[in-house]
Parts: sequence; C-alpha cells; structure tokens
Amino acid sequence: MAMRPYDLIVRKRQGGALRPDEIEALISGFVDGSIADYQMAAFLMATYFRGMSTEETTALTMAMVRSGEVLDLGSLAGRAVDKHSSGGVGDKTSLVLVPLVASAGVPVAKLSGRGLGHTGGTLDKLEAIPGFRTALGEAELVAQVERIGCAIAAQSATLVPADAKLYALRDVTATVDSVPLIASSIMSKKIAAGAAAILLDVKCGRGAFMKTEAEARALAETMVAIGRGVGRRTIAVLTAMDHPLGRAVGNALEVREAIDALAGRGPADLEALCLALGGWMLMLGGRARTADDGAEALRNCLRDGSALATFSAMVAAQGGDAAVVRDPARLPQAPVQAAVPAPASGTVTGIDGEAVGLAAMRLGAGRAHKGDPVDPAVGIVLDRTVGDRVRAGQRLATVHARTPEAAALAVAEMAAACTIGQGEPPSAPVICVVIQ
Amino acid sequence: MAMRPYDLIVRKRQGGALRPDEIEALISGFVDGSIADYQMAAFLMATYFRGMSTEETTALTMAMVRSGEVLDLGSLAGRAVDKHSSGGVGDKTSLVLVPLVASAGVPVAKLSGRGLGHTGGTLDKLEAIPGFRTALGEAELVAQVERIGCAIAAQSATLVPADAKLYALRDVTATVDSVPLIASSIMSKKIAAGAAAILLDVKCGRGAFMKTEAEARALAETMVAIGRGVGRRTIAVLTAMDHPLGRAVGNALEVREAIDALAGRGPADLEALCLALGGWMLMLGGRARTADDGAEALRNCLRDGSALATFSAMVAAQGGDAAVVRDPARLPQAPVQAAVPAPASGTVTGIDGEAVGLAAMRLGAGRAHKGDPVDPAVGIVLDRTVGDRVRAGQRLATVHARTPEAAALAVAEMAAACTIGQGEPPSAPVICVVIQ
Repeated sequence: MAMRPYDLIVRKRQGGALRPDEIEALISGFVDGSIADYQMAAFLMATYFRGMSTEETTALTMAMVRSGEVLDLGSLAGRAVDKHSSGGVGDKTSLVLVPLVASAGVPVAKLSGRGLGHTGGTLDKLEAIPGFRTALGEAELVAQVERIGCAIAAQSATLVPADAKLYALRDVTATVDSVPLIASSIMSKKIAAGAAAILLDVKCGRGAFMKTEAEARALAETMVAIGRGVGRRTIAVLTAMDHPLGRAVGNALEVREAIDALAGRGPADLEALCLALGGWMLMLGGRARTADDGAEALRNCLRDGSALATFSAMVAAQGGDAAVVRDPARLPQAPVQAAVPAPASGTVTGIDGEAVGLAAMRLGAGRAHKGDPVDPAVGIVLDRTVGDRVRAGQRLATVHARTPEAAALAVAEMAAACTIGQGEPPSAPVICVVIQ
Repeated sequence: MAMRPYDLIVRKRQGGALRPDEIEALISGFVDGSIADYQMAAFLMATYFRGMSTEETTALTMAMVRSGEVLDLGSLAGRAVDKHSSGGVGDKTSLVLVPLVASAGVPVAKLSGRGLGHTGGTLDKLEAIPGFRTALGEAELVAQVERIGCAIAAQSATLVPADAKLYALRDVTATVDSVPLIASSIMSKKIAAGAAAILLDVKCGRGAFMKTEAEARALAETMVAIGRGVGRRTIAVLTAMDHPLGRAVGNALEVREAIDALAGRGPADLEALCLALGGWMLMLGGRARTADDGAEALRNCLRDGSALATFSAMVAAQGGDAAVVRDPARLPQAPVQAAVPAPASGTVTGIDGEAVGLAAMRLGAGRAHKGDPVDPAVGIVLDRTVGDRVRAGQRLATVHARTPEAAALAVAEMAAACTIGQGEPPSAPVICVVIQ
C-alpha cells in the first residue's frame, strides 16, 4: 500500500477520517522509524483540533496493541477484571481495590506505569514497602494471580511500545490532552494486559486531569466505545476529585492509609469509593449480580479480614515485608514532622488537590522530572478535611519532611491550599455517572 | 530568557499570541537546532488552525530576516523597487517587468528562488537562454543594477536561511497553506533583498495557489500590513489567474514570448498586466505620480525599444547570448511539434491552467521532484485562447516535446484542458483589487 504520511496529515487537518489500514501504517511506520517524528507531531496536532471518530480511535488503539506483546490471562480460573484510574492527588485506590476484589474471588493482574504527575504512582507507593518488587515476568505474574488472586506489577516495555514512543512525543508537542489520544493510550494498555473486562475510574474536578464533567464524560464514553468495539466489556464511572482522596498524600503514608482501609478503618471517602468501584468489578467478574450486591460482598471482606490477608499475601509474594500490615511503623518514616496550623476559625470548605500535590512533590514524594527518584517517607497527612470545623491555630495537616526547611515551605503551601469559610461545603457524591 | 518551546506551542494551540521576543527565540532556536523539528511541526500545525495577529506575523517575518544576511541597495542612485508574484501557469511577468521598469529609471534587483510548482520558475526560464548565469555575488549584482538598471539572480542561501529550513518542514507536514506562514515567507525574502518598496502581484483563481479572491485578499492584506509595520512601502494587486497568462508555457517558449512582449508585440493579457503592475512600480519608485501615469510611460518604453534594449543588456551582463533577442531561433527548440486539434466547434470558454501546467511538467518543463532537471525546450503554446472561436479539427495549441510519445500524451491532456462551448466567456479585468 502506497500510503503517504503527508496525505494522512492533510486529511486529518481537513477534518476527514482515516481508514484502519492507514492508521495501522501510521503507527507501525512511527514505531519502526520510517515515519518521521515531525510528521507524527503535525498529525497529532491536527488530531488535537479535529478529533477522531470512534472507529478511528478504536483502530488507533488496536494498532498500538499490535505494536507489542499481549498478556495471556486465559489460564486463570476466574474471569479477570482490570481497572484503571485516571489518577489524582492521594489516589491510592489500586492498593485497596486490587486485593479487596481478589479476596472476593475476582482475579486481578494489575500493571502500572510510573507516576507521571506530581505525586508518586501505584508502583512508587508499593515500593515504599521494604523489599517489594514490582518487576515480575509474565509467567511469575500469572502464577501469582493463580495462587493468591492478584498482583500489581510494572508494565513491561514489550507491552504497547507504540504508546511509550507516542506519549514521549505528545509530551513535548503539547498534544497530550486530546480525548482520542488519551483514550487510545489507556485502552491499548488495558487490552494488552489481557483482562476480559475493564473498569475505568475517570476522575473529574480540580484535583484531576479532566477538570470538567463534560471532558471526563467524553473521555469515558470514548473508552467504553473502544472496549465495546473490541469485545472487552468496559464500564466507566465518573468520580469527583475536587480535593485529595482520603487523608494521606505521599508514598509510605498512603500505604499506611491503604492498610487502614483494607482493615475496615480507613477514611470514609476512600472506603466508599473502593466499595463502589469494587462492586462494579465484582459484577464484571461474574461474582455479583449488581454493583450494589458486589459492594455488599466487599464490605464483608473488609470486615472478616480477608481483604487485608490478600494484601498481606501479595506483599509477601512480591518480596515485601508483610509485617508492615500489622506494624506500619516498619514503613519508612520522615525525620521531620511539622503541624500546619489553621490560619482562621471556621469550616474547611476546600482543599486544592493540585496545590497539595505540588507541595508533596517538592517534599520529594513525586517527580519534577522523569526518572527522578522519589522519597518514600515524605508527604502530607490531612488532619482536617473538607466539611470539618476548625479553630484558628488548630492543626489542619501534618507535613512529613526530610529537612526542617522543606517542612517550613510545605507548611506555608498547605496553609494556602486550604480554604476556611463559614457555611457548609457542597457534598459531592462519590460516583457522579456510570457509563456502560 | 527561559523560553520553553512547549509553552509557546500550548499558547498558540489555545489561540493566544506570542510576543516578538518569543517568536525570535523560536526561529533562532529552530535555525540553530536547539528547538526540535517535531516541536516546530506542532507549532506550525497549531498556527495553521489558530492563525497569527499582524504583530506576530510581522515579528515572524523580521525574525526570519535576521536569520541571515541582508542585501544593501543603499548605494543605488534611484529608489529600488522589488516585485513578487505568487505565480501561476505561464507567468513570465518578471522577465518582462524587470527590464521594462528599469528602462523607465526605477532600479530593480530581483532575486528569485527555484520553481516549486509544476512549471519552471523565473530562473529556469532565463537559463533557457544559452550562457545565462543566475548565480551573482552581492557586489556583482549591485554593480550590474547600477550600470544597466536591473538584474535577475538566484537568491543566495545566506539570505533568510530560516525560510528555507521552515519551508522544507512545512512542505512535509501539510502546513504550507497558512496565510501568516506564506506572508512571512514571501515578505522576509523581499525585505532581506533590500528594496525600499515592494509591489506584490497576488494571483487568484483556478490557475493560482490562492483559489478564491477572499484567500488572495487575506494574504495580500497581511503582506501589506507587514510592509507597513517595517517601513517598506508595499502595494498588493490581486490579479485574475483563471487560465494561463499569455500563450506560452515552457521555459524557452516563455522567454520568446517575453521578448515579443518587450518589443510591443506580446499577447494582450500579458502586456496589459505588465503595464498595470509596472505602473504601480514606477509610482513606488517615485518616477510617476500615479500608476496610470506610470503605465503610460512604460507604453513608450515598449514602443521606443528601450525596454527590449534593457533586457538585452541584462542578458549580456549575465553572460547570456543576447543575440536571442533579435533571433529567438537561437533558443533551444524541441524536436517534436504536435498540433492539438479542437474536438468541437464553438468558443474557447475556459483553459484549465493547472491541467496545462501539469501537462507541461510531464513534458519536462517543470519538476515533479525538487532538484529534478528541467528541459528548456519543451512546453505548450496556445494557438487559441479564452474567447477565441474555433472550428472542430482546427489547431487549439501546439505541443513542443522531446519524443512523439510525450507529445501524444500532452495532446490528449490539452484537449481535455480546454473547454469549448457556445456563448461568450465572462471577461475578467486584469487587476481585481489594489491594496495599499
């Protein structure tokens, strides 16, 4: 086929659609280097302006899947369900959800990338547990899921190499925030990871990548349509992310909070979200008739200790110090702890998730640049959250820092990130919309 | 200044404007290689969609001018005037206009690029004259203009190197047809070429790059605004280009027609256009009060032989065989001449300039690929033009070809390119609009 990249750029620029074979040629040419990155950059920017049809986005997703290997979960006894969260500050749902859902009988082989945002990703959080290994081979991963029901591992470079190359280009050409490009990036990785069904947690709000519900809904609908197109049952839930989820922001601090949640004594918002998302996963995995039934079953797993036991088994299987489950003091701890005093009396009406995330990043919990190391111990714990009453001078939050200087900066940033007003803050539901 | 190309791409993508220092940094970084071509490609595509303000386009033009050397025409006695034509099939106006205007006392140092379209450019046409040299050094060029009033030479690579680099990228990323990018490309070269005033001939119609008057007007207004912003008096005229200009298409054939026109016996449309454009150039050069006065003065130069004498002097000064002026048979001639018979009786109501150009290119008169050689001898001469009556079987045009096979193809293409109808074709004025 004599496909000229130039002609495809022109067609997209004029608002036309590409055929699946043309998209395949574009992606395979980009990966093998026969299509120049400047042509792909122009194509991506034209796509930013013109969008893609569902058919094009699905073809792009599958072209990316075909660029690498695909995980085979066919040998598992149960129907494997995967989950993806578009992430946000303090989002430790994977740490809770994966063992929780597995404890109810739905196998989960979760692959994660490194955190790209200001805060650490799921892998960074788990690596705060002494000894925890996230680099598992395919056979090892599948065997672990067969044996204990779940695993959380680093995505191998052989899975969807087109996505890594494309993302690196999008990242420097201001073409990241395009719905078809985001949707195909996420879905290609989920499809390559082999699960039969996929649950997507699409955050929206100030603390999330998608700031408005309309944007989040467009992304969710596109991903669900891709799943439908390729025969993977996909459900997306839009969840509010106006302030950090739970109380802890920082790697070891979030592991500690996840352990609390798995023991049934976590923050209310985190538990509610995990039960809701997990309920849908149980339904997708054929272990519950409805999401509500699923949530009810999971509540029992928190109560009877099976969720925490599954987490403990996963930590041990991946070489981690499982004793942290009973003794979280074994997690790395920061040498400096400093209180953030409330600057006024009233009700906490807002906590700017992005500002908290940036403060945590500057403490060392996240990365300013790709490849930077993260400090597992540092972070921020909210002692008061949205809706709580506070008196001037009372402790709003606790900063965990490496040095007194770093702590002082974070204290000031946190004081500015919290809004204290009179009246009541609006209470947002955990799940705004379900798209299936 | 810590300018991040990424931030400039985002700003343009969002429809914002860049400051002059930011545009300067973008262009100088692109030229010195510190800004990657994929980032520039994304910026160009964002500019395609978002456009640029006059201030931005002017800053872009001057940043491109500053990327290289600038010609100094300050030593010339008269006020030098430059001209640019957006080109079209059969456009040999530069060959006529430059010596014509010079013969009336306005110095013209015309620099040309190689033809990018299907037909040869001005340099290709002049090089059809045996011995004609287009590579002149700056001192040589200025001395020639001082001595005989004009020169037509190849633009040196040291002038506006940013344009060549940018154009090469635009050419492969589908970002050529953007008004601010076209306007800055043209005006940067005119400004660097040193003339005090600039006349722009912006073609519109089926045979031109700009297909509609609205597009041509937008381009013309932008270029005039740039000229105003940088203190170079600029006038643009929009001229119709629905069919080939004059009768000849092909390098030596067009030189022959230009000689006829300079001798006062050229095709009416070519003469009318050259007198109109030249009239404005005389006004810009301070040699006529109005464009009409200027055109009248130029008519005398055609009549009294001074225009042809100036052309002859220019050919001789640039090493060409000046005897071609009296004996055009000294120009290269194609071995095969074939008649294109009219397929029907009636009036020629249209000649598709683009189709004629492509036919001439396939004969060898133009380039399918950059760097291809051109054949000076081949081409097409229209024996009938729009408005002429013709009977079936009468000669519509003559094809000048290298081989009988090439001639046969061109004959068929020409028969299809000409429309023969009943009624009268609409008569278009030479100049549609003047923008100053």
